[in-house]
Amino acid sequence: MAEERTFQAELMAWIARKGFVWGPSPEIYGGSAGFYDYAPLGKLLKNKVEQAIRETFIQHDFWEMECPIVVPAKVWEASGHLGGFSDPIIKDEKGGVYRADALLEEQLHSETAVLNGKTITIDGASHEELLAIIKEHNIKAPNGLALVPDIKEHNLMMRTTTGLDSESYNRPETATTTYLPFIRYTSFFRDKFPFGVFQIGKAFRNEISPRQHILRQREFTQAEGQLFLFKNQKDTFEKFELVKAMKLPLMYYDVKKDAYVDYNRAGGPVLTLEQAIKQKILKNKAYAWTLSLAYNLFINMGIPAEKIRMRQHEAQKMTFYADDAWDVELQLNSFGWFEVCGVHDRTDYDLKQHAKYSKQNLQARNETTGQKETPHVLEIAFGTDRPTYALMDLFYKKDEQKEQDVFTPPAKMAPISVAVFPLVNKAGLPEIAHEIYTQLKAAGLVAVYDKAGSVGRRYARQDEIGTPYCITVDFDTLGEGEKSLKGTVTLRDRDSTKQVRVNKKEMVSIVQSLLNGSKKFNEVK
Amino acid sequence: MAEERTFQAELMAWIARKGFVWGPSPEIYGGSAGFYDYAPLGKLLKNKVEQAIRETFIQHDFWEMECPIVVPAKVWEASGHLGGFSDPIIKDEKGGVYRADALLEEQLHSETAVLNGKTITIDGASHEELLAIIKEHNIKAPNGLALVPDIKEHNLMMRTTTGLDSESYNRPETATTTYLPFIRYTSFFRDKFPFGVFQIGKAFRNEISPRQHILRQREFTQAEGQLFLFKNQKDTFEKFELVKAMKLPLMYYDVKKDAYVDYNRAGGPVLTLEQAIKQKILKNKAYAWTLSLAYNLFINMGIPAEKIRMRQHEAQKMTFYADDAWDVELQLNSFGWFEVCGVHDRTDYDLKQHAKYSKQNLQARNETTGQKETPHVLEIAFGTDRPTYALMDLFYKKDEQKEQDVFTPPAKMAPISVAVFPLVNKAGLPEIAHEIYTQLKAAGLVAVYDKAGSVGRRYARQDEIGTPYCITVDFDTLGEGEKSLKGTVTLRDRDSTKQVRVNKKEMVSIVQSLLNGSKKFNEVK
Repeated sequence: MAEERTFQAELMAWIARKGFVWGPSPEIYGGSAGFYDYAPLGKLLKNKVEQAIRETFIQHDFWEMECPIVVPAKVWEASGHLGGFSDPIIKDEKGGVYRADALLEEQLHSETAVLNGKTITIDGASHEELLAIIKEHNIKAPNGLALVPDIKEHNLMMRTTTGLDSESYNRPETATTTYLPFIRYTSFFRDKFPFGVFQIGKAFRNEISPRQHILRQREFTQAEGQLFLFKNQKDTFEKFELVKAMKLPLMYYDVKKDAYVDYNRAGGPVLTLEQAIKQKILKNKAYAWTLSLAYNLFINMGIPAEKIRMRQHEAQKMTFYADDAWDVELQLNSFGWFEVCGVHDRTDYDLKQHAKYSKQNLQARNETTGQKETPHVLEIAFGTDRPTYALMDLFYKKDEQKEQDVFTPPAKMAPISVAVFPLVNKAGLPEIAHEIYTQLKAAGLVAVYDKAGSVGRRYARQDEIGTPYCITVDFDTLGEGEKSLKGTVTLRDRDSTKQVRVNKKEMVSIVQSLLNGSKKFNEVK
Repeated sequence: MAEERTFQAELMAWIARKGFVWGPSPEIYGGSAGFYDYAPLGKLLKNKVEQAIRETFIQHDFWEMECPIVVPAKVWEASGHLGGFSDPIIKDEKGGVYRADALLEEQLHSETAVLNGKTITIDGASHEELLAIIKEHNIKAPNGLALVPDIKEHNLMMRTTTGLDSESYNRPETATTTYLPFIRYTSFFRDKFPFGVFQIGKAFRNEISPRQHILRQREFTQAEGQLFLFKNQKDTFEKFELVKAMKLPLMYYDVKKDAYVDYNRAGGPVLTLEQAIKQKILKNKAYAWTLSLAYNLFINMGIPAEKIRMRQHEAQKMTFYADDAWDVELQLNSFGWFEVCGVHDRTDYDLKQHAKYSKQNLQARNETTGQKETPHVLEIAFGTDRPTYALMDLFYKKDEQKEQDVFTPPAKMAPISVAVFPLVNKAGLPEIAHEIYTQLKAAGLVAVYDKAGSVGRRYARQDEIGTPYCITVDFDTLGEGEKSLKGTVTLRDRDSTKQVRVNKKEMVSIVQSLLNGSKKFNEVK
């Protein structure tokens, strides 16, 4: 724990100091809890994450949508958010406000509590149960003050107004807004099912005590994919054939044993998706395929495979609309295993609710049955803040030997792709270096030009922010040393710190090849 | 006018029918005025616009930020939005609400009105003046009802709450949020001025009667670039040298003549930026450079040069904080010349306001003067909805000869880059076509596969949505016709409708070359 805290402190300091994330924002006004600024390097990193998500979804035939953030109240009545999307809050004697269930979990260091000799799960307990646990375990606020025995529900939605007086809300999720154009989709996709759509956009939850940096914000960016299909298509899902031999790190919940069985770690059996379906660990082919897509999304963002697991929800934790639900969890250095994605079979719940509240027919003709039916939805619900944090967490470290910070994300995910230095600021070196820098930028690469300090210091500065390649223009470039080196520059690799001399005219194509993976550094000549 | 309306109606119908933009959203709940869904093709187009903006800013050394949408009230007090960001509204006898100044302009078909024999500008007139104009000109609501002679100011900000009771607002612009981390910037940029930052993100304005489709929404996406520099750097701005010979379509306001002088049309003199500064049409080098960047942003989005002009604000229309202000206008087929961007010298106004309200020192050391000073800001304020609309407006037309819709944006901006067809759905053709389709997608291209209907119908379907290239796999591909054609496919160009046969193995690199402009269609062999 102490080690985790030290790492956390070092990580947070580096994140702010080097210009990845600043906040809580707006800092000069004292900050608003749960709101952050993505600073220049963090925004470049987040854009890479979002671009990887886009490309993965598009490759898998999902189409992107962009729906409004501000949505009328009626929609949230239908979705259930206006009625049920709330947290229990409690105050201390001096008016400090806490989320009651989170406070109990924290003070008891457990997700369960004993009450009258019975073990109950704190998350989802009634107000009466929560108050009884507080009394029985004599729980106080973190500041030591007594808690006022009164729990209220606090709705997490941020309300606003459109027009003169229309009640609207900043959406608490993108998913609901993605479902609403269903009738339009059937026409766009020419009545063919299944089809997939996704949305990357902001969502808002007015949590009472947001903590854990950008992992839990009041304003955050979601990325949610929705696969629409008829119920009978779940067992005949064609694309499953492409992934059936794939092995995922499935951590299965065994209801009989009331315990998790980890199929991929500590010697547990390793299953293919096909075997997982045969053993009824996964319910159907469409769900298994969706789970494999969720896994691929994180792999394509550059998250190492060994840091990913898929964990089935415990039966009692399953959300009310979900027929089956698994989480993707990442093993963070700062917070341990952390949920970053949920894959849900939402059944026909949402479309039926919106049909009811909007009084529109949200059915479509099922070619197999010949009947009009309400399609089901399989959802991949995640966001882009947590993966961005994960990349910083997993690839940042303090290099004790060099006494400096280093950041080593995969080259394609690095905020800045390449840095260009003149060895000295004279003799025509800056002009050549600047020309290379301009060419790299013209090719669409994110490049920086740095002339300040020793070259060693400049390498270190780039290592601190993860830049995979550095180019140095020196006197050999001018042909003043070894004649054969004229026109060549030094290309330096971040991870191996190896250097090769390459022709300056080839720099753009070499860096592009290194970034897209078509060439490795030790293949550069 | 009638022709404009017909085109508008055809354009709007095509936009919705083909899946570019749907709304007002949420349609199944009756729609909320001023809110729209970007449907799959519109979202692909908007992403291209945003990517072009990003690349242009990055090439010009601007760094992207992402700041929160929900911002505390105090910030908007400082920026002046809480006090002054409002529209005058008036009701008719039955409670219908109108924006008073816009209503008068519309009913009088003029931006000015005669009152007691004096001509006054309607935009910016006092409530008393507006009421007097209504009386003098006997103006009624568009529905013919009488107007209630009472005008109120309606604030355009969407209010919400964070925590239990903290007054916050959905931001009405990104610019203010971009200024707030100023102290962090000085450290990130190592105290070097000038530096540039930009932000692409949502903003919200609760307009009373939003119209004109996605050109005027209540929720919209802004893209705003901010150049921080000291006042003395405006006249010595180094990068000006790179653009001084550039000729922009400058439409200058001559205060003495109280009229516009168009330097680039109808035989007016054509000036370089250097000449424009000499003639005091542009105030300084930094502003001129910023104006050239604004122009380049629209060129790089694929807007044709002849559809762009830069129009100086009339003196009386200049916003209160601006030292100089020019708009970028595009000549739309549906609405004529339309403002899509403002370039503003905001002086040190914003930083001084936030220094005052936050009680933080927002000065920095000016290397030239050796003094601590508050930097100035030059701003490029625009958005991504209007350019997206402009691309649809300028490149859509009804082809009377073919009796179909056609969309002809520059190839790199097209929503879908390439479509793949098997000539018939048998004899192994679909397998080859699907393999090519998969390879194109794996290379990151947006591709579709279509097997429905005649090939002519499939070409037409792609022409309707702007897909620049189509690939058809036929019997020659199998080697069943002319032997030398084995392994080749047909590549068809949207604009010329010409076709060439190319080796299927080269399809990915050929399409990539065509899209990035390194090859023209008539150079493909």
